[in-house]
Amino acid sequence: MGFGIEREGGDTVEVRRVALVGTGVIGAGWAARFAVNGIDVRIHDPDPRAPERVAGALEDAKRACARLTLAPPAPPGRIEFAADVDEAVAGAGFVQESAPEREEVKRALLAAASRAAPPEAVIASSTSGLLPSRLQADCTAPERVLVGHPFNPVYLLPLVEVVGGDATSSEARDRAAAVYRAVGMHPLVLEAETDAFIADRLMEALWREALHLVRDGVATAEQIDEAIAFGPGLRWSVMGTFLLYRLAGGEAGMQHFLEQFAPTLALPWSHLQGPELTEDLAARITTQSDAQAAGRTIRELVRLRDDCLVSVMQGLRVHDHGAGATLRAWEAKLFSRAHRAARSKNHDLARPLALHAARVDPEWVDFNNHMTESRYLQVFGDATDALLRFAGADDGYMATGRSFYTVETHIRHLREVAGGESVTVTTQVLGSDEKRVQLFHRMFHDTGGGPREEGAEPRRGAELATAEHMLLHVDTAAGRAAPAAPEIAARLAAIAAAQAPLGTPDGAGRRIAMP
Amino acid sequence: MGFGIEREGGDTVEVRRVALVGTGVIGAGWAARFAVNGIDVRIHDPDPRAPERVAGALEDAKRACARLTLAPPAPPGRIEFAADVDEAVAGAGFVQESAPEREEVKRALLAAASRAAPPEAVIASSTSGLLPSRLQADCTAPERVLVGHPFNPVYLLPLVEVVGGDATSSEARDRAAAVYRAVGMHPLVLEAETDAFIADRLMEALWREALHLVRDGVATAEQIDEAIAFGPGLRWSVMGTFLLYRLAGGEAGMQHFLEQFAPTLALPWSHLQGPELTEDLAARITTQSDAQAAGRTIRELVRLRDDCLVSVMQGLRVHDHGAGATLRAWEAKLFSRAHRAARSKNHDLARPLALHAARVDPEWVDFNNHMTESRYLQVFGDATDALLRFAGADDGYMATGRSFYTVETHIRHLREVAGGESVTVTTQVLGSDEKRVQLFHRMFHDTGGGPREEGAEPRRGAELATAEHMLLHVDTAAGRAAPAAPEIAARLAAIAAAQAPLGTPDGAGRRIAMP
Repeated sequence: MGFGIEREGGDTVEVRRVALVGTGVIGAGWAARFAVNGIDVRIHDPDPRAPERVAGALEDAKRACARLTLAPPAPPGRIEFAADVDEAVAGAGFVQESAPEREEVKRALLAAASRAAPPEAVIASSTSGLLPSRLQADCTAPERVLVGHPFNPVYLLPLVEVVGGDATSSEARDRAAAVYRAVGMHPLVLEAETDAFIADRLMEALWREALHLVRDGVATAEQIDEAIAFGPGLRWSVMGTFLLYRLAGGEAGMQHFLEQFAPTLALPWSHLQGPELTEDLAARITTQSDAQAAGRTIRELVRLRDDCLVSVMQGLRVHDHGAGATLRAWEAKLFSRAHRAARSKNHDLARPLALHAARVDPEWVDFNNHMTESRYLQVFGDATDALLRFAGADDGYMATGRSFYTVETHIRHLREVAGGESVTVTTQVLGSDEKRVQLFHRMFHDTGGGPREEGAEPRRGAELATAEHMLLHVDTAAGRAAPAAPEIAARLAAIAAAQAPLGTPDGAGRRIAMP
Repeated sequence: MGFGIEREGGDTVEVRRVALVGTGVIGAGWAARFAVNGIDVRIHDPDPRAPERVAGALEDAKRACARLTLAPPAPPGRIEFAADVDEAVAGAGFVQESAPEREEVKRALLAAASRAAPPEAVIASSTSGLLPSRLQADCTAPERVLVGHPFNPVYLLPLVEVVGGDATSSEARDRAAAVYRAVGMHPLVLEAETDAFIADRLMEALWREALHLVRDGVATAEQIDEAIAFGPGLRWSVMGTFLLYRLAGGEAGMQHFLEQFAPTLALPWSHLQGPELTEDLAARITTQSDAQAAGRTIRELVRLRDDCLVSVMQGLRVHDHGAGATLRAWEAKLFSRAHRAARSKNHDLARPLALHAARVDPEWVDFNNHMTESRYLQVFGDATDALLRFAGADDGYMATGRSFYTVETHIRHLREVAGGESVTVTTQVLGSDEKRVQLFHRMFHDTGGGPREEGAEPRRGAELATAEHMLLHVDTAAGRAAPAAPEIAARLAAIAAAQAPLGTPDGAGRRIAMP
């Protein structure tokens, strides 16, 4: 059972099964995207390795989607193989052709599909650049034949260019867009057809320039790739060239940018000759750029760009890859500088200890951009780890087969906190014996909005939550409670004694009950 | 006080103060990057608006860096303005020129800087594409003059192209690279100079192609930007074109890709004519691509690409922007589908309700392959959501601005569970009134170990944990407690009444205390 497909008009149409013709990297990606969205797939591909390719793409897609969202997946659609095009497309609500990029091959397959598919089925070609008017020429009912050009990996990237030919109806374009939207894509519906459409023309220009650079011995493949992924590529994941250049123009905007950089167009800065920047063209770009900015100021757009760039780089940091690896190396430098400074600092044991701070990571938020409840516990757990390390139970100690396990937790949620915000935790040791330690954490919004300069105190905002924990010291090999090392038990007892005058904090020792 | 600057040779040099000549968008970005990295900055810029521009960039940079990392920042460097170039560069360890993109202007400023700067200072130009051999022509000691080409916003993007001219020493390039690395950048050191270097040639080719598209009326600025940011731009934040195309070739790799797509180079898919893909050029690309892959298989690289794309899209989701907005819309659809499915099932209200099951994801485990404590709460939170939806508080209801918030949680951890294992949760409603509901969940190991046939019961193994929750119904717009819709309150009360004979479960109503 597929999604209800919402069409532009507001009425709903359901696609339960799609037909795929051809399953190379792109077609296999389509199979995976449709299947993970609960839509059955019937495939024709004469290549005996096709089932293996499709299974591999489905595995990759399931893995990626499980990481992408906490939403429960749809029951996956069934994938079957058909002996020929006719059998694949019979009864299908939608047909997607992804055969090799040769016009005669695609024309023949699309013509066959159009003869055997139900009359209401829309038929899309994944071509990277062949013209839909030519592809639909031999088709029965060519008004429902068009291009739906996706990008690898098809199961992850949202873009799909929807391009009609001379014979294509606007109804077919709307319907294709609705199908793509239903499986999580962003259809870009173009009014006019042109060789290679939009994205591939841009990619092709860049690629051909790159080939010239390699041929001329100016740079290697690896250098060219670094020149993209550590700079312009980061920006392009957030905004396209026009909006980015509007921002580069500063407060004066697009008109200023075009005036300032018009001479550059005449320089030998690419093998591609640009068009003449006539007054008419400059005026058209400025008008279109103003429309795109939709009243947002340069300052607003700069902040949006920067916030998105920060999140993109943080995302890459998780994988220690590309710009994320650069960020990690820079952070390591900052941390080691801060640790050097902190080692000289004495903590006042008689006050709640501020040993842990965190930022609400992009992955931690719910649909309303609020930190989800389990991430509160994650932050409190990290604060517990920081306290234990402070007491001497560090990695070296754990490696001796001893550890503290949390056996009981009591959380009070007081206020929401949004993605990107910072929080800071203070910790009080309420009690301890040789096997146990009882902790009380308070989490505050850090209104300083981020890490602080050395020595500065966090600017504590609203209290967000509290957590009380009972920890048990265990011999991990034996799997049972055991006394902690005397020096650690003593250190915890010393903190508890120093903090005893603080008394039992508000919210500790509670039980849950209806009023 | 600046960072210790590590040089390639292993010895260390400290840059305490840099001089900046020219502070447009790029120069102001340099000022901000150096200052937030603790390096003093002395600026010459005759424009009276320069101080305002620099202050704005510094504010943006501080905000961005605070979001970027939890590491405590260095104490910021001082920013001062000098009356002329001589005063700015006197005593500086490093000079960065960012004047307007006119060769005669830059040559004059660089020459002046080279006369007044200390002999050991490296002098870099931010030019987007002018040749360093020409820029250094009028300089004193031209061997330490080179190009250091950054990307906007300079305080965030790591890429900087380091390009020497005919007179530049390799020692100067190394030293510039070390300075840039110390302030968190990724220097790309090129062996040969060429107009516009690497990144700008690629960007310029794409930009000129985009201008052709607008001139020809094929697409608008906004459509062109979408064609980048929803597709290829996402990939380019992760990898460059060569590595991406290697992956697009599938297991057969780069050689296969080139063979398959060579005919495309002859198609009118860009206004730019590519070079002929001779055997020699194809061999060179294949060799360079193999070196870049560094022994990683296509499968490994595909997973790296996908994992990074997932993280990038999640990062954009925080800002509900671009591909992140598409992701958010798709998630909403998945959630509402899952909720509809759950409601259609029949449950015996007199027994604890089994509404939620989960598998322990590989990401959820600690280094001992045990589920971390915060993931227990994640599973319990999902079980709470399932109960609320079961009672009628679904997405449609939430969309009316009403919701249940967890205000208090009490967890008991009883047993560990390993990654890959399945768990199932049963839920009892202990009490409710018009604004509150008190729940008790029990989590069991599901020894059935996997997805079940529709209607089949889980095979319950050991009890792993319990969670007691108090939820409050809120008016989310007003931000305060409010009565739930009568039909939902009635449904919750009915479940509580039906389950009342079960009594208070073991472990409910506890408080945490030392024995």
